[in-house]
Amino acid sequence: MIKGEETKEKILSSALYWARRFGLESLTIGELAKTVGMSKSGLFGHFKSKETLQLKVLDFAAQHFTNSVIIPAIKAPRGIPRIKEMVGHWLQWASESLNGGCPFVAAVTEFDDRPGPIREKVRSYQEQIIDTFSKACSIAIVEGHFSKNTEPRQFAFELYGLMLGHHLFFRLLEDPDVQERFNISFGQLLEKYQGQAGTLKMFGEKGPLP
Amino acid sequence: MIKGEETKEKILSSALYWARRFGLESLTIGELAKTVGMSKSGLFGHFKSKETLQLKVLDFAAQHFTNSVIIPAIKAPRGIPRIKEMVGHWLQWASESLNGGCPFVAAVTEFDDRPGPIREKVRSYQEQIIDTFSKACSIAIVEGHFSKNTEPRQFAFELYGLMLGHHLFFRLLEDPDVQERFNISFGQLLEKYQGQAGTLKMFGEKGPLP
Repeated sequence: MIKGEETKEKILSSALYWARRFGLESLTIGELAKTVGMSKSGLFGHFKSKETLQLKVLDFAAQHFTNSVIIPAIKAPRGIPRIKEMVGHWLQWASESLNGGCPFVAAVTEFDDRPGPIREKVRSYQEQIIDTFSKACSIAIVEGHFSKNTEPRQFAFELYGLMLGHHLFFRLLEDPDVQERFNISFGQLLEKYQGQAGTLKMFGEKGPLP
Repeated sequence: MIKGEETKEKILSSALYWARRFGLESLTIGELAKTVGMSKSGLFGHFKSKETLQLKVLDFAAQHFTNSVIIPAIKAPRGIPRIKEMVGHWLQWASESLNGGCPFVAAVTEFDDRPGPIREKVRSYQEQIIDTFSKACSIAIVEGHFSKNTEPRQFAFELYGLMLGHHLFFRLLEDPDVQERFNISFGQLLEKYQGQAGTLKMFGEKGPLP
């Protein structure tokens, strides 16, 4: 990595850390300059405007998500095992509490009412992750793990809802049973889409998460 | 209502409108003064500090929620009919798009990383709504609508997850099928807790929502 890229990565990493904790909208070039110990004009040279900075932070977060969640999961066998890997890595990623949780979950409610390029980018990344879950579901149908009647986007809708529930119970409510609650509901969700109660056992006794 | 109370209600109503759209943290006494056409010092007289204003807005929103969702639902017969009424009114309340969605959903991700009195209030209101759903579930067990094995807070966890999924699909993704998706999943959730497939039909053919 050449030096300019390294600097940019370091800046984006600090910016993401800020956005995860305080929201993307409160991220300003001035605040960021203080955090990374650079001049405001130096940062302007990199990003030109607050909006460009916010968009770059979202791209950086998406790249981080792909590396932490999607790429490791794709190595798992097709179908339910891959879905479980994806969910396991997603939970790990969203639960890194020092990093302030999932930046996309926070950005969703922050920008759903603010039309403009940032809302469009947040929406596009959310559609991508829902498509990824829908595709993983389609593969599970082809592999014979899920019933042929399954509607992949409906599965993705329910799975994402469970994840959002996990986020709330874990981060705000600090529910000590959140992991077990999630495991039970996720296991039953997989079971429902298999269309026959009890076959979940074929995936081992230790529950649905890796 | 005496004049001072009317003024306060008008101010809080504007403040809630702002918080629903742009977040509670971006709400300042200065901005609010411009919106309601009062002097900044006049508003300071009412609220003393930004934090007091934010806390009052949350109380105001909670009162609005109780009036719009809880009180009408309590009139419905105990058990599943009451749960359906609650969910129906919650969706209506959260879907008033002109008002910028549910202020609590937005506040959850905004404040889960910011320790202090506002986070504590948001948390306490979220616990209250989850308790309300848990209690409605307990009543459904007593009434014989739900299986005796049901764990009420697990039901509330799953129901709240579905609602958060609805919020995302409705407000950010603008999914045209969101209402149907929600109805299907909510119907299956009720069915699961009844512990016997098919008995949902006793609640009418038009689906789980009123």
